[in-house]
Amino acid sequence: MSTHDARLDRLAEVAVRVGLGLRPGQELVMTAPLEALPLARRITVQAYKAGASVVTTLLADDQATLARFEHGHDDAFDRAAGWLYEGMASAYRGGAARLAISGDDPSLLAGQDPDKVARANRARSKAYMPALEQIANFATNWTIVSAATPAWARTVFPELPEDEAVARLWDAIFSASRVDGPDPVGAWEAHNRALSDRTRSLNERRYAALHFRGPGTDLTVGLADDHEWCGGATTAKNGITCNANIPTEEVFTTPHKMRVQGYVSATKPLSYQGTLIDGIAVRFEEGRIVESRARTGADVLAKVIDTDEGARRLGEVALVPASSPISASGLLFCNTLYDENAASHIALGQAYSKCFRNGGAGLSEQDLTARGANRSLIHIDWMIGSAEVDVDGVTPEGRSEPLMRRGEWVD
Amino acid sequence: MSTHDARLDRLAEVAVRVGLGLRPGQELVMTAPLEALPLARRITVQAYKAGASVVTTLLADDQATLARFEHGHDDAFDRAAGWLYEGMASAYRGGAARLAISGDDPSLLAGQDPDKVARANRARSKAYMPALEQIANFATNWTIVSAATPAWARTVFPELPEDEAVARLWDAIFSASRVDGPDPVGAWEAHNRALSDRTRSLNERRYAALHFRGPGTDLTVGLADDHEWCGGATTAKNGITCNANIPTEEVFTTPHKMRVQGYVSATKPLSYQGTLIDGIAVRFEEGRIVESRARTGADVLAKVIDTDEGARRLGEVALVPASSPISASGLLFCNTLYDENAASHIALGQAYSKCFRNGGAGLSEQDLTARGANRSLIHIDWMIGSAEVDVDGVTPEGRSEPLMRRGEWVD
Repeated sequence: MSTHDARLDRLAEVAVRVGLGLRPGQELVMTAPLEALPLARRITVQAYKAGASVVTTLLADDQATLARFEHGHDDAFDRAAGWLYEGMASAYRGGAARLAISGDDPSLLAGQDPDKVARANRARSKAYMPALEQIANFATNWTIVSAATPAWARTVFPELPEDEAVARLWDAIFSASRVDGPDPVGAWEAHNRALSDRTRSLNERRYAALHFRGPGTDLTVGLADDHEWCGGATTAKNGITCNANIPTEEVFTTPHKMRVQGYVSATKPLSYQGTLIDGIAVRFEEGRIVESRARTGADVLAKVIDTDEGARRLGEVALVPASSPISASGLLFCNTLYDENAASHIALGQAYSKCFRNGGAGLSEQDLTARGANRSLIHIDWMIGSAEVDVDGVTPEGRSEPLMRRGEWVD
Repeated sequence: MSTHDARLDRLAEVAVRVGLGLRPGQELVMTAPLEALPLARRITVQAYKAGASVVTTLLADDQATLARFEHGHDDAFDRAAGWLYEGMASAYRGGAARLAISGDDPSLLAGQDPDKVARANRARSKAYMPALEQIANFATNWTIVSAATPAWARTVFPELPEDEAVARLWDAIFSASRVDGPDPVGAWEAHNRALSDRTRSLNERRYAALHFRGPGTDLTVGLADDHEWCGGATTAKNGITCNANIPTEEVFTTPHKMRVQGYVSATKPLSYQGTLIDGIAVRFEEGRIVESRARTGADVLAKVIDTDEGARRLGEVALVPASSPISASGLLFCNTLYDENAASHIALGQAYSKCFRNGGAGLSEQDLTARGANRSLIHIDWMIGSAEVDVDGVTPEGRSEPLMRRGEWVD
């Protein structure tokens, strides 16, 4: 195994070359937790080497976020820095690429007033909408990579001393991000080919629905009309091929927001804005959550699905084998980028317009809605797959074909 | 003398209460060098205590700036993050206050290609123009305070070990910012009254010009028609009274861009973007620099005054007694906020529209130009006052009245 610095450099190179596919002359907008500065600096170097015109990094300071909750006046929490998010949207419209380093403290706001947290999130989500739409619709090339921050590492390895926890989390990140070997870019090319073969096969079969069966789960997820399976590399609307998630193991598509029926139990806890929501079980009727409970964090879950009408419906369904490298690590990362690549999952909220035939090109908002695409301020993934869950594909004629058995692909 | 932390807290309080006069519910946009994080965090706390709705801090990383010069492709240097500056302008239009923490490494770009530095500065200045206009015209309340960063401290105290240099620079900052005593806010009220008495007296006299005489200097600076002297607290156009510079010792007004005549020698070096320009001597004819030289950094000076037509003309003239506390420290800070408050000075470039009767209210760009206000992408102050320089006020009838003798006010 090579040194930490060498692997950090390789992760930065993979982020810029594989994640973004950054084009010479392209601007880059990066967001990062302050603690991820060493990775952000290496990505900046790689981006300029690749010909970036300007790299702008917005460093987020947890202490500033906490200061607001600890000292802010009550009427402050319905406001957000709209000018910044509008600026970001304008940057993407102008051709800028987008890179997010994730590594947030999963418990940062755990001790704060849940009502203020919900209000601040709602205000931020609303202000962020114009930028999020550009990203969700792949108007430009973008990617997310992770950095092992101390707070995140403590959450994943609560029993270890902090420096050891950080080192262990970096090991997991480097391994899952496929930068351990001598040729990370080549490893990503092979991985992208495998994911592409899988989506091609699913797209040829054109299932009308997926059927999940397992402990506490009997759920039929109707797929959107003209849906298309995606996974691995994506060609954004600016013509640049990017890998939006580093790592990624999933293949995913758009469910029909009116055609989800049955009950489902989460197979992993959901870490949402500092609260661990564990033991989620919900029931859908005609696409809508009509019953929900959770063993812990039920109040936060209730607030989340009350965000707007679309927050009670699905915007994504994804299949990941239970033997995926991240799943094999046996860790709960409390970080969507990692946990969603450990298990099959569904997402409440906003659908991706690109998961339609021809990448959704030419489809208006109305066209998307007519085909069953959901719309919401939120997009929250939660895990419903495991080695105990089977998945069938249901053909338009109603015939079931085995897709996954005990969490693994049947072919 | 109280502890470092207590003085840092008082500086943060002065920045928010005296510098900004932040209003409950107001948003705040802060910029800071990464090394100023401890002060930025304290200001964030003070701002939320004062009722800020959202505080957004943009942390600047010198390493990222250097990475661009070291690895960026040649065609990158004519680009800037326009979306960010437009966003900031939009924030100010929407009512946000603005706080800048200055403490930049004066020599950061000293080793870089001067042509690339000039191109990057020009691109940035142009992109920043919409935001700068809001600030220069006091559309909103704003302030600048300083933090003792290691790189800046090394420049001011090159002979000291770094930690000692930083401590000495903090001492100078706390002292100049009047936060050493038990009641900094009260001290600022008294100081603002003294500056206000001085500007009232100058405004009553309505001089047509100032005449500077000293070693290497015989310069007549015609004042703009309807000019007004400013200093200390300013009431911004949003009705909020702020102190734009912490510290501040100057009273200043707008020269007439066509009516500057004679020669002038700088009394301190000018630190510009990492280059120390020393021994500046220039000659003006009808407001325009027609000859310029410098003992060191002459090439950078030449590039600066070639930025645009307005870069060769004056946008500000300011009077500061040679006995000001900052001057008395005997230090060269290589930081405009400090050095400009150590000596009388002039500024090349953009004029402040507020230095006109009635704060410039109701004056269009054309009105300002007709009265002699200069316009440029740049605004660069340099020091022409000292204990060897006399200043006269020249009445519209051509009579000279002594204003300063040997650098001190005559009354």
